[in-house]
Amino acid sequence: MIDNEYYSQAVHGPYETFNIGDLALEEGGTIRNCQIAYATFGKLSPAKDNAILVTTWFSGTSKIMEQAYIGPGRALDPEKYFIVIANQIGNGLSTSPHNTAWPLGMASFPKVRIGDDVVAQQRLLKKKFGIDTLALVTGGSMGAQQTYEWAVRFPKAVKRAAPIAGTARTTPHDAIFSQAVADAITSDPAWAGGWYEQPHAVREGLSRHSRMWALMGFSTEFFKQELWRPIGFSSVADFQLNFLDATFLPMDPNDLLCMAWKWRHADVSRHTGGDLAKALGRIKARTLVMPISSDMFFPPADCADEQKLIPKSELLVLESLWGHIALFGLDAGYNQQIDTALKRLLASAA
Amino acid sequence: MIDNEYYSQAVHGPYETFNIGDLALEEGGTIRNCQIAYATFGKLSPAKDNAILVTTWFSGTSKIMEQAYIGPGRALDPEKYFIVIANQIGNGLSTSPHNTAWPLGMASFPKVRIGDDVVAQQRLLKKKFGIDTLALVTGGSMGAQQTYEWAVRFPKAVKRAAPIAGTARTTPHDAIFSQAVADAITSDPAWAGGWYEQPHAVREGLSRHSRMWALMGFSTEFFKQELWRPIGFSSVADFQLNFLDATFLPMDPNDLLCMAWKWRHADVSRHTGGDLAKALGRIKARTLVMPISSDMFFPPADCADEQKLIPKSELLVLESLWGHIALFGLDAGYNQQIDTALKRLLASAA
Repeated sequence: MIDNEYYSQAVHGPYETFNIGDLALEEGGTIRNCQIAYATFGKLSPAKDNAILVTTWFSGTSKIMEQAYIGPGRALDPEKYFIVIANQIGNGLSTSPHNTAWPLGMASFPKVRIGDDVVAQQRLLKKKFGIDTLALVTGGSMGAQQTYEWAVRFPKAVKRAAPIAGTARTTPHDAIFSQAVADAITSDPAWAGGWYEQPHAVREGLSRHSRMWALMGFSTEFFKQELWRPIGFSSVADFQLNFLDATFLPMDPNDLLCMAWKWRHADVSRHTGGDLAKALGRIKARTLVMPISSDMFFPPADCADEQKLIPKSELLVLESLWGHIALFGLDAGYNQQIDTALKRLLASAA
Repeated sequence: MIDNEYYSQAVHGPYETFNIGDLALEEGGTIRNCQIAYATFGKLSPAKDNAILVTTWFSGTSKIMEQAYIGPGRALDPEKYFIVIANQIGNGLSTSPHNTAWPLGMASFPKVRIGDDVVAQQRLLKKKFGIDTLALVTGGSMGAQQTYEWAVRFPKAVKRAAPIAGTARTTPHDAIFSQAVADAITSDPAWAGGWYEQPHAVREGLSRHSRMWALMGFSTEFFKQELWRPIGFSSVADFQLNFLDATFLPMDPNDLLCMAWKWRHADVSRHTGGDLAKALGRIKARTLVMPISSDMFFPPADCADEQKLIPKSELLVLESLWGHIALFGLDAGYNQQIDTALKRLLASAA
């Protein structure tokens, strides 16, 4: 365990935690007394048929999902739905390398897969709220990976699925990127094999990591058209420092590495002996696959290839020059498209 | 100076070197007795009107340009043209950080710009061969940057120009990539501020550098369709090791950094006080701008924006799933397109 003030109610709250018990992991480890941090919005209907699960992306927490996607009048409307945002294992609020007691955390933290998260989330929903079926599961990036895993693993529980800017099985190129993201951190000597003694010792590695996001997270046009300017930055260097470094440098390196490994190994076809078509063919949810037009590592073509394998599915390419990071909700045009699409999906018969 | 067996006639020959004298650099330094390494093919006509200049890309030498672009029956046909391939400063064959005597080389090597290369090349062509005009200047990537610089700086000397997969002014996103390429090297403690004592000490940094090329040099489809397989590799890891690491790890880190800086700062609008339209408007050459369809850091849109500013110009997008590295000539379809295009350009009135 290493104290890091970033992972706090002050920064990410309000959120609660639920002990789902011991979680036996797909890779062989076990997390004992696994805590899932979550935030809820709205009220669960007596029939328990208005529940929406929102998943989190790499480095994201319930806070950014709340800020970017939830609100009265929006598709994810707390006045209509009971919305649960579940923080993924390793994201710093749920059980993670940095908050697990020595000597079991940090570099010793076990390997976690997307499937482990989904099993943990299912326990949270069932044990804490008695929820058996979900009106919608949605999330972006690694959140899309969890959405696909939900729809394949628990097909009867998921009425509708909206994976945004992510794939059901990590592509080889996406794996190269998630490895580069990890390399940026582990190449810093201050990482010390994962046993740094100060929470912010790995600043050079984390800064290189944030530059990987500058490289792959946006788009050539984003920088060419200086779209960082209208959101309050004065130069690329200022954007790099005050947006990307400010976002990533407070985080815990081992937590990021836990998530990067999980991202790289996402693959719903593990349920079907490597047969992706068979795995996606299991999905019963009405599924709206939404890549972002300028995404450099979950490009529309990769998402379209998977969508064709899903029975009741549709492809909708979200137009944005923000690349993958349109997910953050700072592009008004993106927000409008996502709300329109999710409202339509939620209004459709399951 | 540091001995490195990679930069030798055995690996890159045959090539010759020419002393262009002292080269006063745009950034304020001077290279004394600057050597330009070059290779020639074919015979210069008595009227000296059949000369073609081929420039080199980041990390490339005259050898790869010869292998990928020159031959009987191809557009760059030694039976018709006198072809000079000029190695850029810093590429390890021409004057470079690694081959400059201590204490003036390595980390002390001065900053070099694309314009310095073009001035050096013009001296080589004039002093060594008496060439005043060029039937064609062509090159890919940083070679395209040199091609644009030639056409803007010496408009009367360049009859035709074919910049491939490169821009006249580095875009902000391309600058982020070239910085990431450099960071991969300098972040290795073995780089030691540029004063490593063994030529291959910086292997971790160079390996990360080669992974940056895996990330940005090809395309998502290249990896998805396993296009590394038909060229003799058995997995992504094998391709990474035996293609990319085998390509980059023998190179000199400071030489690569010299070129990466030059790449990042390429900008023909330095001739016109920052006015890119005015600079490109100066070009008299018939210009064929050829981006590669799946290029991730010199995307067609960026090349098209510049092409519109060039008077006698045309845009031709080369279709390839090989991304930027289609330049290497391992995609037969790319080679066919480039030959057809260059033959047509060479047949057109200047």
